[in-house]
Amino acid sequence: MTERNPILQSLFDRKSVRVYEEKPIPAEMKQAILEAAAQAPSAGCQQLYTILDITDPALKEALAESCDHQPFIAKAPLVLVFCADCKKWYDAYLEVGCTPRTPGVGDLMLAVTDAAIAAQNAVVAAESFGIGSCYIGDIMENCDTQRSLLHLPDYVFPAVMLVFGWPTQQQKDRVKPQRCAMEHIVHENGYRTMDGAELRDTFSYKAGNAPFDQWCTAFCNRKYNSDFSKEMTRSVEEYLNQFR
Amino acid sequence: MTERNPILQSLFDRKSVRVYEEKPIPAEMKQAILEAAAQAPSAGCQQLYTILDITDPALKEALAESCDHQPFIAKAPLVLVFCADCKKWYDAYLEVGCTPRTPGVGDLMLAVTDAAIAAQNAVVAAESFGIGSCYIGDIMENCDTQRSLLHLPDYVFPAVMLVFGWPTQQQKDRVKPQRCAMEHIVHENGYRTMDGAELRDTFSYKAGNAPFDQWCTAFCNRKYNSDFSKEMTRSVEEYLNQFR
Repeated sequence: MTERNPILQSLFDRKSVRVYEEKPIPAEMKQAILEAAAQAPSAGCQQLYTILDITDPALKEALAESCDHQPFIAKAPLVLVFCADCKKWYDAYLEVGCTPRTPGVGDLMLAVTDAAIAAQNAVVAAESFGIGSCYIGDIMENCDTQRSLLHLPDYVFPAVMLVFGWPTQQQKDRVKPQRCAMEHIVHENGYRTMDGAELRDTFSYKAGNAPFDQWCTAFCNRKYNSDFSKEMTRSVEEYLNQFR
Repeated sequence: MTERNPILQSLFDRKSVRVYEEKPIPAEMKQAILEAAAQAPSAGCQQLYTILDITDPALKEALAESCDHQPFIAKAPLVLVFCADCKKWYDAYLEVGCTPRTPGVGDLMLAVTDAAIAAQNAVVAAESFGIGSCYIGDIMENCDTQRSLLHLPDYVFPAVMLVFGWPTQQQKDRVKPQRCAMEHIVHENGYRTMDGAELRDTFSYKAGNAPFDQWCTAFCNRKYNSDFSKEMTRSVEEYLNQFR
Protein backbone atom coordinates (compact mmCIF):
# COMPACT_ATOMS: atom_id res chain seq x y z
CA MET A 1 0.00 0.00 0.00
CA THR A 2 1.80 3.10 -1.16
CA GLU A 3 -0.79 5.56 0.12
CA ARG A 4 -3.72 5.03 2.48
CA ASN A 5 -7.09 6.65 1.96
CA PRO A 6 -8.27 8.83 4.88
CA ILE A 7 -10.59 6.16 6.30
CA LEU A 8 -7.85 3.54 6.30
CA GLN A 9 -5.38 6.04 7.74
CA SER A 10 -7.80 6.77 10.57
CA LEU A 11 -8.05 3.05 11.42
CA PHE A 12 -4.24 2.83 11.48
CA ASP A 13 -3.83 5.98 13.56
CA ARG A 14 -6.40 5.17 16.23
CA LYS A 15 -4.88 4.22 19.58
CA SER A 16 -6.34 3.96 23.07
CA VAL A 17 -6.61 7.24 24.96
CA ARG A 18 -6.77 7.19 28.76
CA VAL A 19 -6.14 10.83 29.73
CA TYR A 20 -8.59 13.50 28.64
CA GLU A 21 -8.78 17.26 28.41
CA GLU A 22 -11.41 18.76 30.70
CA LYS A 23 -13.66 19.52 27.80
CA PRO A 24 -17.10 18.10 27.09
CA ILE A 25 -18.12 16.26 23.94
CA PRO A 26 -20.65 18.39 22.02
CA ALA A 27 -24.13 16.89 21.93
CA GLU A 28 -24.21 16.57 18.14
CA MET A 29 -20.92 14.63 18.15
CA LYS A 30 -22.19 12.31 20.87
CA GLN A 31 -25.35 11.78 18.87
CA ALA A 32 -23.34 10.99 15.73
CA ILE A 33 -21.18 8.49 17.66
CA LEU A 34 -24.28 6.71 18.96
CA GLU A 35 -25.97 6.72 15.57
CA ALA A 36 -22.83 5.38 13.88
CA ALA A 37 -22.91 2.50 16.38
CA ALA A 38 -26.55 1.80 15.52
CA GLN A 39 -25.69 1.85 11.80
CA ALA A 40 -23.26 -1.05 12.26
CA PRO A 41 -24.18 -4.44 10.80
CA SER A 42 -26.00 -6.78 13.16
CA ALA A 43 -27.27 -10.35 12.95
CA GLY A 44 -30.47 -10.38 10.90
CA CYS A 45 -30.57 -6.61 11.44
CA GLN A 46 -31.88 -7.32 14.95
CA GLN A 47 -29.49 -4.96 16.80
CA LEU A 48 -29.02 -7.46 19.59
CA TYR A 49 -27.62 -4.85 21.98
CA THR A 50 -28.63 -1.99 24.22
CA ILE A 51 -26.27 0.92 24.82
CA LEU A 52 -26.13 2.35 28.33
CA ASP A 53 -25.16 6.02 28.30
CA ILE A 54 -23.60 6.72 31.70
CA THR A 55 -24.13 10.40 32.46
CA ASP A 56 -24.38 10.27 36.26
CA PRO A 57 -20.99 11.24 37.79
CA ALA A 58 -21.59 9.04 40.84
CA LEU A 59 -22.26 6.05 38.61
CA LYS A 60 -19.09 6.76 36.62
CA GLU A 61 -17.17 6.79 39.92
CA ALA A 62 -18.73 3.48 40.92
CA LEU A 63 -17.84 1.91 37.56
CA ALA A 64 -14.30 3.29 37.78
CA GLU A 65 -14.03 1.36 41.04
CA SER A 66 -15.84 -1.84 40.00
CA CYS A 67 -13.89 -2.04 36.72
CA ASP A 68 -10.55 -2.85 38.34
CA HIS A 69 -9.98 0.54 40.03
CA GLN A 70 -9.29 2.74 37.03
CA PRO A 71 -9.98 6.35 38.07
CA PHE A 72 -9.63 7.70 34.53
CA ILE A 73 -13.01 6.11 33.71
CA ALA A 74 -14.76 8.61 35.99
CA LYS A 75 -13.02 11.49 34.23
CA ALA A 76 -14.23 10.54 30.75
CA PRO A 77 -16.89 12.92 29.38
CA LEU A 78 -18.60 10.01 27.58
CA VAL A 79 -19.00 6.49 28.99
CA LEU A 80 -20.98 3.85 27.11
CA VAL A 81 -21.71 0.25 28.04
CA PHE A 82 -22.69 -1.98 25.12
CA CYS A 83 -24.85 -4.76 26.50
CA ALA A 84 -25.51 -7.96 24.61
CA ASP A 85 -29.31 -7.93 24.85
CA CYS A 86 -31.09 -11.27 24.52
CA LYS A 87 -34.07 -9.96 26.45
CA LYS A 88 -35.82 -7.44 24.23
CA TRP A 89 -36.69 -9.74 21.34
CA TYR A 90 -37.58 -12.54 23.77
CA ASP A 91 -39.97 -10.14 25.54
CA ALA A 92 -41.39 -8.97 22.21
CA TYR A 93 -42.11 -12.59 21.24
CA LEU A 94 -43.89 -13.11 24.56
CA GLU A 95 -45.81 -9.86 24.04
CA VAL A 96 -47.33 -11.10 20.77
CA GLY A 97 -48.20 -14.49 22.27
CA CYS A 98 -45.39 -16.64 20.84
CA THR A 99 -43.81 -19.42 22.85
CA PRO A 100 -40.13 -18.61 22.40
CA ARG A 101 -37.46 -20.89 23.86
CA THR A 102 -35.46 -19.18 26.62
CA PRO A 103 -32.30 -17.49 25.29
CA GLY A 104 -29.32 -19.82 24.95
CA VAL A 105 -25.57 -19.35 24.76
CA GLY A 106 -25.75 -19.21 20.96
CA ASP A 107 -28.03 -16.20 21.19
CA LEU A 108 -25.67 -14.68 23.73
CA MET A 109 -22.60 -15.10 21.50
CA LEU A 110 -24.40 -13.59 18.54
CA ALA A 111 -25.45 -10.66 20.72
CA VAL A 112 -21.92 -10.22 22.09
CA THR A 113 -20.51 -9.95 18.57
CA ASP A 114 -23.33 -7.53 17.62
CA ALA A 115 -22.44 -5.38 20.64
CA ALA A 116 -18.70 -5.35 19.89
CA ILE A 117 -19.25 -4.57 16.21
CA ALA A 118 -21.48 -1.63 17.10
CA ALA A 119 -18.95 -0.46 19.69
CA GLN A 120 -16.15 -0.42 17.13
CA ASN A 121 -18.24 1.79 14.85
CA ALA A 122 -18.56 4.19 17.79
CA VAL A 123 -14.77 4.15 18.16
CA VAL A 124 -14.20 4.88 14.48
CA ALA A 125 -16.81 7.64 14.50
CA ALA A 126 -15.22 9.26 17.57
CA GLU A 127 -11.77 9.08 15.98
CA SER A 128 -13.14 10.92 12.94
CA PHE A 129 -13.82 13.87 15.29
CA GLY A 130 -10.43 13.58 17.00
CA ILE A 131 -12.11 12.10 20.09
CA GLY A 132 -10.09 9.37 21.78
CA SER A 133 -11.51 6.16 23.21
CA CYS A 134 -10.58 3.19 25.34
CA TYR A 135 -12.21 -0.21 25.76
CA ILE A 136 -12.65 -1.43 29.33
CA GLY A 137 -12.83 -5.24 29.31
CA ASP A 138 -13.20 -5.18 33.08
CA ILE A 139 -16.92 -4.47 32.67
CA MET A 140 -17.30 -8.27 32.53
CA GLU A 141 -15.97 -8.59 36.09
CA ASN A 142 -17.84 -8.28 39.38
CA CYS A 143 -21.20 -9.25 37.92
CA ASP A 144 -23.11 -8.71 41.15
CA THR A 145 -21.92 -5.12 41.42
CA GLN A 146 -22.40 -4.33 37.74
CA ARG A 147 -25.85 -5.90 37.65
CA SER A 148 -26.90 -3.76 40.54
CA LEU A 149 -25.24 -0.55 39.29
CA LEU A 150 -26.62 -0.89 35.77
CA HIS A 151 -29.96 -2.56 36.62
CA LEU A 152 -29.15 -5.52 34.37
CA PRO A 153 -31.96 -8.07 34.18
CA ASP A 154 -31.48 -11.68 33.12
CA TYR A 155 -30.40 -12.18 29.51
CA VAL A 156 -28.55 -8.85 29.38
CA PHE A 157 -24.75 -9.09 29.49
CA PRO A 158 -22.37 -6.10 29.65
CA ALA A 159 -20.11 -7.11 26.76
CA VAL A 160 -18.09 -3.97 26.14
CA MET A 161 -17.49 -0.69 27.93
CA LEU A 162 -16.08 2.31 26.09
CA VAL A 163 -14.88 5.60 27.49
CA PHE A 164 -14.31 8.65 25.29
CA GLY A 165 -12.67 12.04 25.62
CA TRP A 166 -10.42 14.61 24.00
CA PRO A 167 -6.82 13.36 24.17
CA THR A 168 -4.25 15.43 26.04
CA GLN A 169 -1.10 16.39 24.12
CA GLN A 170 0.82 13.67 25.95
CA GLN A 171 -1.72 11.10 24.77
CA LYS A 172 -1.56 12.43 21.21
CA ASP A 173 2.22 12.07 21.28
CA ARG A 174 2.20 8.55 22.70
CA VAL A 175 3.41 5.95 20.21
CA LYS A 176 0.77 3.40 19.24
CA PRO A 177 1.73 -0.07 20.51
CA GLN A 178 3.09 -2.34 17.81
CA ARG A 179 1.06 -5.29 16.53
CA CYS A 180 2.54 -8.72 15.93
CA ALA A 181 3.63 -9.70 12.42
CA MET A 182 0.75 -10.51 10.07
CA GLU A 183 2.09 -14.00 9.25
CA HIS A 184 1.34 -15.10 12.81
CA ILE A 185 -2.15 -13.58 12.93
CA VAL A 186 -3.40 -14.71 9.50
CA HIS A 187 -3.44 -18.44 8.79
CA GLU A 188 -4.42 -19.80 5.38
CA ASN A 189 -7.34 -22.24 5.05
CA GLY A 190 -7.20 -23.53 8.60
CA TYR A 191 -5.80 -22.93 12.04
CA ARG A 192 -2.08 -23.66 12.38
CA THR A 193 -1.01 -24.49 15.91
CA MET A 194 2.20 -22.53 16.46
CA ASP A 195 5.18 -24.39 17.90
CA GLY A 196 7.44 -22.95 20.60
CA ALA A 197 9.78 -21.30 18.12
CA GLU A 198 6.95 -19.54 16.28
CA LEU A 199 5.31 -18.45 19.53
CA ARG A 200 8.58 -16.87 20.61
CA ASP A 201 8.88 -15.25 17.22
CA THR A 202 5.28 -13.97 17.45
CA PHE A 203 5.56 -12.28 20.82
CA SER A 204 9.29 -11.53 21.23
CA TYR A 205 8.98 -7.90 20.05
CA LYS A 206 6.91 -7.21 23.17
CA ALA A 207 9.78 -8.06 25.52
CA GLY A 208 11.93 -5.13 24.37
CA ASN A 209 15.39 -5.55 25.84
CA ALA A 210 14.31 -8.04 28.52
CA PRO A 211 14.93 -11.79 28.06
CA PHE A 212 11.74 -13.19 26.51
CA ASP A 213 11.10 -15.89 29.13
CA GLN A 214 11.38 -13.39 31.94
CA TRP A 215 9.10 -10.87 30.23
CA CYS A 216 6.54 -13.52 29.27
CA THR A 217 6.43 -14.97 32.78
CA ALA A 218 5.84 -11.52 34.26
CA PHE A 219 3.15 -10.84 31.65
CA CYS A 220 1.43 -14.14 32.47
CA ASN A 221 1.38 -13.26 36.16
CA ARG A 222 0.13 -9.73 35.53
CA LYS A 223 -2.46 -10.40 32.81
CA TYR A 224 -3.53 -13.99 33.00
CA ASN A 225 -2.87 -15.65 36.35
CA SER A 226 -3.95 -12.41 37.99
CA ASP A 227 -6.89 -11.95 40.34
CA PHE A 228 -8.86 -9.72 37.97
CA SER A 229 -8.54 -12.28 35.22
CA LYS A 230 -9.80 -15.13 37.40
CA GLU A 231 -12.60 -12.88 38.61
CA MET A 232 -13.62 -12.19 35.02
CA THR A 233 -14.12 -15.89 34.36
CA ARG A 234 -16.03 -16.38 37.61
CA SER A 235 -18.25 -13.45 36.73
CA VAL A 236 -18.86 -14.54 33.13
CA GLU A 237 -19.71 -18.05 34.39
CA GLU A 238 -22.41 -16.48 36.51
CA TYR A 239 -23.88 -14.57 33.58
CA LEU A 240 -23.74 -17.75 31.49
CA ASN A 241 -25.82 -19.62 34.05
CA GLN A 242 -28.81 -17.55 32.92
CA PHE A 243 -28.49 -19.05 29.46
CA ARG A 244 -28.50 -22.75 30.24
CA MET B 1 -25.53 16.73 12.45
CA THR B 2 -25.87 18.99 9.44
CA GLU B 3 -23.02 17.42 7.47
CA ARG B 4 -21.17 14.16 8.04
CA ASN B 5 -17.43 13.86 7.56
CA PRO B 6 -16.37 11.19 5.00
CA ILE B 7 -15.53 8.59 7.67
CA LEU B 8 -18.88 8.98 9.37
CA GLN B 9 -20.67 8.96 6.02
CA SER B 10 -18.96 5.69 5.15
CA LEU B 11 -20.18 4.11 8.41
CA PHE B 12 -23.72 5.27 7.61
CA ASP B 13 -23.59 4.09 4.00
CA ARG B 14 -22.22 0.62 4.64
CA LYS B 15 -24.76 -2.15 4.18
CA SER B 16 -24.42 -5.91 3.79
CA VAL B 17 -23.57 -7.11 0.29
CA ARG B 18 -24.42 -10.69 -0.71
CA VAL B 19 -24.03 -10.66 -4.50
CA TYR B 20 -20.64 -9.95 -6.03
CA GLU B 21 -19.17 -9.05 -9.38
CA GLU B 22 -16.87 -11.76 -10.75
CA LYS B 23 -13.82 -9.68 -10.06
CA PRO B 24 -10.99 -10.45 -7.65
CA ILE B 25 -9.88 -8.24 -4.79
CA PRO B 26 -6.38 -6.88 -5.56
CA ALA B 27 -3.67 -8.25 -3.27
CA GLU B 28 -2.75 -4.85 -1.84
CA MET B 29 -6.38 -4.14 -0.90
CA LYS B 30 -6.70 -7.51 0.77
CA GLN B 31 -3.50 -6.83 2.67
CA ALA B 32 -4.77 -3.41 3.77
CA ILE B 33 -8.06 -4.97 4.96
CA LEU B 34 -6.18 -7.55 7.02
CA GLU B 35 -3.76 -4.98 8.43
CA ALA B 36 -6.63 -2.64 9.34
CA ALA B 37 -8.15 -5.52 11.31
CA ALA B 38 -4.86 -6.08 13.14
CA GLN B 39 -4.68 -2.35 13.93
CA ALA B 40 -7.96 -2.54 15.86
CA PRO B 41 -7.87 -2.15 19.64
CA SER B 42 -7.59 -5.39 21.59
CA ALA B 43 -7.57 -6.31 25.27
CA GLY B 44 -4.15 -5.50 26.70
CA CYS B 45 -2.94 -5.29 23.10
CA GLN B 46 -2.91 -9.09 23.09
CA GLN B 47 -4.76 -9.55 19.77
CA LEU B 48 -6.74 -12.48 21.15
CA TYR B 49 -7.75 -13.70 17.70
CA THR B 50 -6.46 -15.53 14.66
CA ILE B 51 -7.79 -14.74 11.20
CA LEU B 52 -8.32 -17.66 8.83
CA ASP B 53 -7.99 -16.59 5.22
CA ILE B 54 -10.05 -19.08 3.19
CA THR B 55 -8.52 -19.23 -0.29
CA ASP B 56 -9.33 -22.85 -1.20
CA PRO B 57 -12.48 -22.95 -3.40
CA ALA B 58 -13.43 -26.39 -2.09
CA LEU B 59 -13.24 -25.14 1.48
CA LYS B 60 -15.39 -22.12 0.58
CA GLU B 61 -17.96 -24.52 -0.89
CA ALA B 62 -17.90 -26.61 2.27
CA LEU B 63 -18.37 -23.52 4.47
CA ALA B 64 -21.19 -22.28 2.22
CA GLU B 65 -22.89 -25.57 3.00
CA SER B 66 -22.06 -25.84 6.70
CA CYS B 67 -23.06 -22.21 7.33
CA ASP B 68 -26.77 -22.76 6.78
CA HIS B 69 -26.58 -23.46 3.03
CA GLN B 70 -25.74 -20.02 1.66
CA PRO B 71 -24.17 -20.50 -1.78
CA PHE B 72 -23.12 -16.86 -2.10
CA ILE B 73 -20.39 -17.54 0.45
CA ALA B 74 -18.55 -19.72 -2.06
CA LYS B 75 -18.72 -16.96 -4.65
CA ALA B 76 -17.05 -14.34 -2.47
CA PRO B 77 -13.49 -13.48 -3.57
CA LEU B 78 -12.45 -12.98 0.06
CA VAL B 79 -13.60 -15.09 3.00
CA LEU B 80 -12.20 -14.52 6.49
CA VAL B 81 -12.98 -16.32 9.73
CA PHE B 82 -12.08 -14.38 12.87
CA CYS B 83 -11.40 -16.92 15.60
CA ALA B 84 -11.36 -16.03 19.28
CA ASP B 85 -7.96 -17.49 20.14
CA CYS B 86 -7.39 -18.44 23.79
CA LYS B 87 -4.73 -20.94 22.78
CA LYS B 88 -1.73 -18.98 21.53
CA TRP B 89 -0.96 -17.06 24.74
CA TYR B 90 -1.70 -20.15 26.83
CA ASP B 91 0.80 -22.11 24.72
CA ALA B 92 3.34 -19.28 24.96
CA TYR B 93 3.04 -19.33 28.76
CA LEU B 94 3.62 -23.09 28.75
CA GLU B 95 6.58 -22.62 26.40
CA VAL B 96 8.39 -20.36 28.87
CA GLY B 97 7.69 -22.67 31.79
CA CYS B 98 4.78 -20.84 33.45
CA THR B 99 1.89 -22.71 35.05
CA PRO B 100 -1.07 -20.90 33.47
CA ARG B 101 -4.61 -21.81 34.48
CA THR B 102 -6.57 -23.36 31.59
CA PRO B 103 -8.53 -20.75 29.61
CA GLY B 104 -11.93 -19.92 31.08
CA VAL B 105 -15.14 -18.39 29.76
CA GLY B 106 -13.95 -14.92 30.77
CA ASP B 107 -10.93 -15.31 28.49
CA LEU B 108 -13.23 -16.57 25.76
CA MET B 109 -15.59 -13.58 26.01
CA LEU B 110 -12.69 -11.15 25.93
CA ALA B 111 -11.31 -12.93 22.86
CA VAL B 112 -14.73 -12.95 21.15
CA THR B 113 -15.02 -9.19 21.56
CA ASP B 114 -11.42 -8.76 20.31
CA ALA B 115 -12.28 -10.83 17.24
CA ALA B 116 -15.48 -8.91 16.47
CA ILE B 117 -13.79 -5.52 16.95
CA ALA B 118 -11.00 -6.51 14.55
CA ALA B 119 -13.57 -7.83 12.07
CA GLN B 120 -15.45 -4.55 12.04
CA ASN B 121 -12.23 -2.70 11.21
CA ALA B 122 -11.89 -5.05 8.23
CA VAL B 123 -15.45 -4.15 7.18
CA VAL B 124 -14.77 -0.42 7.43
CA ALA B 125 -11.48 -0.77 5.53
CA ALA B 126 -13.18 -2.75 2.76
CA GLU B 127 -15.97 -0.19 2.49
CA SER B 128 -13.34 2.53 2.01
CA PHE B 129 -12.34 0.72 -1.21
CA GLY B 130 -15.95 0.20 -2.30
CA ILE B 131 -15.72 -3.49 -1.39
CA GLY B 132 -18.89 -4.93 0.13
CA SER B 133 -19.03 -7.34 3.04
CA CYS B 134 -21.41 -9.57 4.94
CA TYR B 135 -21.16 -11.16 8.37
CA ILE B 136 -22.10 -14.84 8.58
CA GLY B 137 -23.16 -15.64 12.15
CA ASP B 138 -23.80 -19.22 11.12
CA ILE B 139 -20.08 -19.93 11.52
CA MET B 140 -20.94 -20.68 15.18
CA GLU B 141 -23.18 -23.58 14.12
CA ASN B 142 -22.22 -27.18 13.36
CA CYS B 143 -19.11 -27.12 15.52
CA ASP B 144 -18.02 -30.64 14.59
CA THR B 145 -17.99 -29.81 10.90
CA GLN B 146 -16.34 -26.39 11.34
CA ARG B 147 -13.70 -27.77 13.70
CA SER B 148 -12.78 -30.38 11.18
CA LEU B 149 -12.90 -28.05 8.14
CA LEU B 150 -10.86 -25.30 9.82
CA HIS B 151 -8.61 -27.52 11.98
CA LEU B 152 -9.76 -25.76 15.13
CA PRO B 153 -8.00 -27.01 18.27
CA ASP B 154 -9.36 -26.58 21.78
CA TYR B 155 -9.58 -22.97 23.01
CA VAL B 156 -10.12 -21.61 19.50
CA PHE B 157 -13.69 -20.50 18.72
CA PRO B 158 -14.90 -19.27 15.30
CA ALA B 159 -16.54 -16.05 16.49
CA VAL B 160 -17.16 -14.20 13.24
CA MET B 161 -17.09 -15.01 9.54
CA LEU B 162 -16.91 -12.25 6.94
CA VAL B 163 -17.26 -12.51 3.19
CA PHE B 164 -16.19 -9.70 0.87
CA GLY B 165 -16.64 -8.80 -2.78
CA TRP B 166 -17.43 -6.05 -5.26
CA PRO B 167 -21.17 -5.26 -5.08
CA THR B 168 -23.29 -5.72 -8.18
CA GLN B 169 -25.33 -2.73 -9.35
CA GLN B 170 -28.45 -4.30 -7.85
CA GLN B 171 -26.68 -4.55 -4.48
CA LYS B 172 -25.47 -0.96 -4.73
CA ASP B 173 -29.03 0.16 -5.38
CA ARG B 174 -30.53 -1.84 -2.55
CA VAL B 175 -31.88 0.35 0.26
CA LYS B 176 -30.08 -0.13 3.57
CA PRO B 177 -32.44 -1.65 6.15
CA GLN B 178 -33.72 0.85 8.69
CA ARG B 179 -32.53 0.79 12.31
CA CYS B 180 -34.85 1.16 15.27
CA ALA B 181 -35.27 4.58 16.89
CA MET B 182 -32.32 5.63 19.06
CA GLU B 183 -34.47 6.15 22.15
CA HIS B 184 -35.09 2.39 22.35
CA ILE B 185 -31.44 1.42 21.81
CA VAL B 186 -29.80 3.95 24.14
CA HIS B 187 -30.83 3.88 27.81
CA GLU B 188 -29.52 6.42 30.30
CA ASN B 189 -27.59 5.29 33.40
CA GLY B 190 -29.03 1.80 33.52
CA TYR B 191 -31.01 -0.79 31.62
CA ARG B 192 -34.69 0.00 31.25
CA THR B 193 -36.86 -3.07 30.74
CA MET B 194 -39.24 -2.13 27.95
CA ASP B 195 -42.94 -2.82 28.47
CA GLY B 196 -45.20 -4.29 25.79
CA ALA B 197 -46.15 -0.91 24.39
CA GLU B 198 -42.52 0.20 24.03
CA LEU B 199 -41.50 -3.14 22.51
CA ARG B 200 -44.22 -2.74 19.90
CA ASP B 201 -43.09 0.80 19.30
CA THR B 202 -39.46 -0.36 18.97
CA PHE B 203 -40.02 -3.04 16.38
CA SER B 204 -43.25 -2.05 14.61
CA TYR B 205 -41.48 -0.35 11.68
CA LYS B 206 -40.16 -3.78 10.67
CA ALA B 207 -43.65 -5.16 10.04
CA GLY B 208 -44.30 -2.81 7.14
CA ASN B 209 -47.96 -3.09 6.21
CA ALA B 210 -48.51 -6.42 8.01
CA PRO B 211 -50.19 -6.53 11.43
CA PHE B 212 -47.38 -6.43 14.00
CA ASP B 213 -48.38 -9.58 15.89
CA GLN B 214 -48.52 -11.59 12.69
CA TRP B 215 -45.17 -10.27 11.46
CA CYS B 216 -43.48 -10.76 14.83
CA THR B 217 -44.75 -14.32 15.19
CA ALA B 218 -43.45 -15.21 11.75
CA PHE B 219 -40.11 -13.56 12.56
CA CYS B 220 -39.87 -15.53 15.80
CA ASN B 221 -40.49 -18.78 13.96
CA ARG B 222 -38.01 -17.95 11.19
CA LYS B 223 -35.20 -16.42 13.24
CA TYR B 224 -35.47 -17.65 16.78
CA ASN B 225 -37.49 -20.83 17.20
CA SER B 226 -35.85 -22.10 14.00
CA ASP B 227 -33.63 -25.15 13.67
CA PHE B 228 -30.48 -23.16 12.80
CA SER B 229 -30.92 -21.02 15.87
CA LYS B 230 -31.29 -24.02 18.20
CA GLU B 231 -28.31 -25.63 16.49
CA MET B 232 -26.23 -22.52 17.15
CA THR B 233 -26.84 -22.79 20.88
CA ARG B 234 -26.11 -26.50 20.88
CA SER B 235 -22.89 -25.87 19.01
CA VAL B 236 -21.76 -22.95 21.19
CA GLU B 237 -22.49 -25.08 24.29
CA GLU B 238 -20.05 -27.64 22.92
CA TYR B 239 -17.34 -25.03 22.39
CA LEU B 240 -17.98 -23.69 25.88
CA ASN B 241 -17.38 -27.11 27.39
CA GLN B 242 -13.68 -26.66 26.60
CA PHE B 243 -13.59 -23.65 28.87
CA ARG B 244 -15.03 -25.11 32.07
